[in-house]
Amino acid sequence: MLTIYALTMSPPALKVLYVANALGLEYEQKGVKLAEGEGQSEQYKRIHPAGKVPALVDGDFTLFESNAIIKYLARKADSALYPDDLKKQAIIDQWVDFVSQHIHNGISRVLWNKMMAPKFGFDVDENSMKCGYEFLEKYLPIVDAQLGKTKYLAGDEISIADYILLAHVDPLEAIEIDVNKYPNLARWREALRTQDFYQRVHKFYGEALMAKG
Amino acid sequence: MLTIYALTMSPPALKVLYVANALGLEYEQKGVKLAEGEGQSEQYKRIHPAGKVPALVDGDFTLFESNAIIKYLARKADSALYPDDLKKQAIIDQWVDFVSQHIHNGISRVLWNKMMAPKFGFDVDENSMKCGYEFLEKYLPIVDAQLGKTKYLAGDEISIADYILLAHVDPLEAIEIDVNKYPNLARWREALRTQDFYQRVHKFYGEALMAKG
Repeated sequence: MLTIYALTMSPPALKVLYVANALGLEYEQKGVKLAEGEGQSEQYKRIHPAGKVPALVDGDFTLFESNAIIKYLARKADSALYPDDLKKQAIIDQWVDFVSQHIHNGISRVLWNKMMAPKFGFDVDENSMKCGYEFLEKYLPIVDAQLGKTKYLAGDEISIADYILLAHVDPLEAIEIDVNKYPNLARWREALRTQDFYQRVHKFYGEALMAKG
Repeated sequence: MLTIYALTMSPPALKVLYVANALGLEYEQKGVKLAEGEGQSEQYKRIHPAGKVPALVDGDFTLFESNAIIKYLARKADSALYPDDLKKQAIIDQWVDFVSQHIHNGISRVLWNKMMAPKFGFDVDENSMKCGYEFLEKYLPIVDAQLGKTKYLAGDEISIADYILLAHVDPLEAIEIDVNKYPNLARWREALRTQDFYQRVHKFYGEALMAKG
C-alpha cells in the first residue's frame, strides 16, 4: 500500500492526489501537522529532510518533491499520462517545469500572503504578493494560449502536465483572480473539475481550509 | 547541429551547457539580448513563449525549461547520467526538483537584488533578498548532508542532478556566501569545477559579467 503525506490546501500535494486518483491507485493519505512542528520531527524528516508535503512511502522506498512522485507513480503504472517517447516526454517535462516554476511561484506568493499568513499569524509581505500577481499576469496568458492551440497542455492527449497545472490554478478563486480572463484555461479547468479523480480529492479548493474555520 | 540559447550569468542556462559538455555534444551557443528586449521579439517567442533562456533547437524540435532540455539531451544520448531505471530516475528527479525549486529560489532572489538589479538599474527588494538568504540557510544544509551520505547528489554515481546543483551553487562567491560552511558541498563542487565540461563553459561564475564591465 502506498502512503501519501499530503494536505489538500497545498497545490504540490494536491497534484499528487489528483494523479494517484487518475491512475486508480489505492493509497493511504496522511496529514502532517506543519503548524504544530510535525514536519520538523526526526521521524518525518527521515521521509522528507525539509519537512514539507507531499512525500511518498512505497514499501521501503521513500520519495519527496511532487513532480518526482507523480512521474514515479505514472512510470510504475506504465501510464499513457507520461509516455516513454523521447519528444512527447520532453514536451510534458517542459510544461510540468514551466507551470511548477512560474505559475506556482506566482500563486504561492499570493496564496501565502493573502490567505495563509493572516490566518496563521505571520507578517504579510505586500511586495511579494504584488510580484505574485505580476507573475500571474505574465505567465497565465502563456498557458491560456497553449490551451487554445492544443486540447491539453502538452498536446492533444491528457498528461501529467494537466493534473499539475490544475492543482496550481485550483486556488484562483481563493485569491480572487477571475479565471474567465483566460477563456481556454477556464474551459479546460471546468472540464477536469467535474471528473471523478478531482471529486474524490475535494469538491473545491479551500474546502478543508473552510471546514477548519 | 543543436542550438542552445544561453547566457552564462544565468544558472538555468549554465546547467544546460554543463550537461551538453559532459555528454560531449556539439552545439552552437547563441546569446539573447534580454536587456534590449530580444527575448520579447516575435522570432524568439516562437522558440520560448516567455522569452527566457535557456532554450533548445534540435532540427525542427524546440524545447524550453532547463531541466526538460537536460533530460531530453541525456535520454537522447542514452546516457548513464539519467538512467532509465524506475527508482534511480525517481531519486534523480527528486533532487533535480528540490534544487531547482529551493536552492534556485534562494540564489536567484539574492543574485538578482545583490548583483543584477543595481547593475541594470532596477529597484532592490531588500526583503526578497533577506528571504533568499533565509532559504539558503535552510536548504543548503540539506544538500550538504546528502553529499556527506553519498558521493554524488542522487547516489554514488554522478547524474544530471550534480550538474544542475553545480550551476545553482556556482554564484555562491558572487553573493558572498562562504561555501566552507558546507564542507561536503565545498569538496564536491571543487572536484567538479576543475573538470573539462566546466572549463569549456567558463573559468568561474561571473567571468562573462566581469568581462562586460
